[in-house]
Amino acid sequence: MAVLNILDNNPVCDLLGIKYPICQAGMYQVAYGELAAAVSEAGGLGVIGSAFMDPEDLRREIRLVKDRTDKPFGVDILFAEVSGEDATETGYTQQVEDHIAVTFQEGCDVLVSGLGNPGRIVPDAHARGMKVMSLVGNVRQAVAVEASGVDVVIASGHEGGGHVGRIGTISLIPKVVDSVNIPVLAAGGLADGRGLLASLAMGAQGVWMGTRFIATQEARGHDNYKNKIVEIDEDGTVVTRAHSGKPNRMIRNQFTDAWIGRETEIKPFPQQLREVGEDGSYRGRIEGDTAMGVLPAGQGAGLIHSVPPAGQVVEDIMAEARAILQGWEQA
Amino acid sequence: MAVLNILDNNPVCDLLGIKYPICQAGMYQVAYGELAAAVSEAGGLGVIGSAFMDPEDLRREIRLVKDRTDKPFGVDILFAEVSGEDATETGYTQQVEDHIAVTFQEGCDVLVSGLGNPGRIVPDAHARGMKVMSLVGNVRQAVAVEASGVDVVIASGHEGGGHVGRIGTISLIPKVVDSVNIPVLAAGGLADGRGLLASLAMGAQGVWMGTRFIATQEARGHDNYKNKIVEIDEDGTVVTRAHSGKPNRMIRNQFTDAWIGRETEIKPFPQQLREVGEDGSYRGRIEGDTAMGVLPAGQGAGLIHSVPPAGQVVEDIMAEARAILQGWEQA
Repeated sequence: MAVLNILDNNPVCDLLGIKYPICQAGMYQVAYGELAAAVSEAGGLGVIGSAFMDPEDLRREIRLVKDRTDKPFGVDILFAEVSGEDATETGYTQQVEDHIAVTFQEGCDVLVSGLGNPGRIVPDAHARGMKVMSLVGNVRQAVAVEASGVDVVIASGHEGGGHVGRIGTISLIPKVVDSVNIPVLAAGGLADGRGLLASLAMGAQGVWMGTRFIATQEARGHDNYKNKIVEIDEDGTVVTRAHSGKPNRMIRNQFTDAWIGRETEIKPFPQQLREVGEDGSYRGRIEGDTAMGVLPAGQGAGLIHSVPPAGQVVEDIMAEARAILQGWEQA
Repeated sequence: MAVLNILDNNPVCDLLGIKYPICQAGMYQVAYGELAAAVSEAGGLGVIGSAFMDPEDLRREIRLVKDRTDKPFGVDILFAEVSGEDATETGYTQQVEDHIAVTFQEGCDVLVSGLGNPGRIVPDAHARGMKVMSLVGNVRQAVAVEASGVDVVIASGHEGGGHVGRIGTISLIPKVVDSVNIPVLAAGGLADGRGLLASLAMGAQGVWMGTRFIATQEARGHDNYKNKIVEIDEDGTVVTRAHSGKPNRMIRNQFTDAWIGRETEIKPFPQQLREVGEDGSYRGRIEGDTAMGVLPAGQGAGLIHSVPPAGQVVEDIMAEARAILQGWEQA
């Protein structure tokens, strides 16, 4: 049926060299090579999250993906702007430079900016044959990254896990689609084939999902974290600045409760992350402390009921979207 | 084309007796008879918002709709639960009883609960041949109103204008669809045919739009309010309890800014509404004071660029959704 053609081999698939318009978010500490390879091998776009990685670990993970699959994959780098003194103190700016250098040395297909504007590296990335995608939370940012030459904008709604903007996905996506001339991927609160089809209806060409891919077998992270995503419902998350200094959606627990009413004590990004968030992230995501750990997740967690292989997630999303369209054809 | 059949004459249209699955929210002070009649006459479901109306005014507005159209329309009543003493002090409970009595005396096709659980009136409404719809913000509420016998649940996301829940529309709708066996209408941040089609993709059978219908010629309210909705972008609203004591999304202005940092001074619903919100509502919505008035609006305002007749809005939404499906058929 003709209408099924919208689900795969669409323009953004052609641009990125992927089969299905499903991209896996480059989640801090969770999106390592094993996950990225599994998603890419299944026909989506797997992405390594480089944030705060030792640069040599990033090199190892890129090589791991290349060993596992010859399909396109991405590396996500945080281009957040940090003021001068903070940047030096925290070593943040140097680490981002190291991530860029390692990514350019080792090579990847898609460079993703998870935060900030990657404009300054776009010419170098393009010269190396890479595409550049950039995550935004509003139209102003979308227009800015398009002007910087990025190839795809990922518009991410308030429902999403991790760092979030203020605009809900269903209001954000059509508005960004109307405001830029490059392909748009939808993100924020999406977890299944219904979310994919809804995103296409809004004019996006594909989706960028995070939480759905945390609850997979290949994701790095403690089983307690993955199981907690399965366990919570649509109202099990809160937005707080307590993790990093920027608004961040995570699973409501003793950690998030402990910061209620103490918002003035929260330091700016990235100090809060260095002093509170990094330790909390390790406790939550890697050690499995679901009470005091930091466990980012989006409201789409309410739609997640199991921890399958990541490739199965890609197949299931496509099958569900196809089934809806087939049902519509028979209406 | 077969796929176009999903857009009209679907089960919720049959249930409500309407042509198009587009329902107009029963907005406080704005959704009077003229607007409801225009939407119903165009094939959607027009709804009168009775909140805090003098009961005799509600009677007049119901009669006005019946004079203008013989098509189905609704009356929206706030069934919020108010604790005993507050209810007596504010006269709130008596007014709700009066709204129910007038609606039953005059008759309408669909009784809508804009807040709270209308369970106690469902048997009477059904005995009178009315359908009952109920607005909810999470799954727990959806399951509760289904158990109370309502016919349709309206699941309303955090993007919406006026009273809002915490869950974003794109995460809420599929989860509610999975959790109840009655038809679901999607609400919150929707303003065009893309929002309608996205809602259907998520498993809803139709939409409930508020802000889109404020910016119409037939809506009650000052031109300054309507023009402000056209003027703001997707980031022009905030959620505050300053209006009514419950979280409420409205256009960011001097009124909302004035309550930042003074959240502890805000009184519970409905005292805050009586002491602050009602005056602010009149100043904003009716007198057109866009600086200090209360101007509820959703994030879908970013998609609204004109103030057309309400019937034109209904036609435009349907035409846009049809055009997307036709494009998909040719993909």
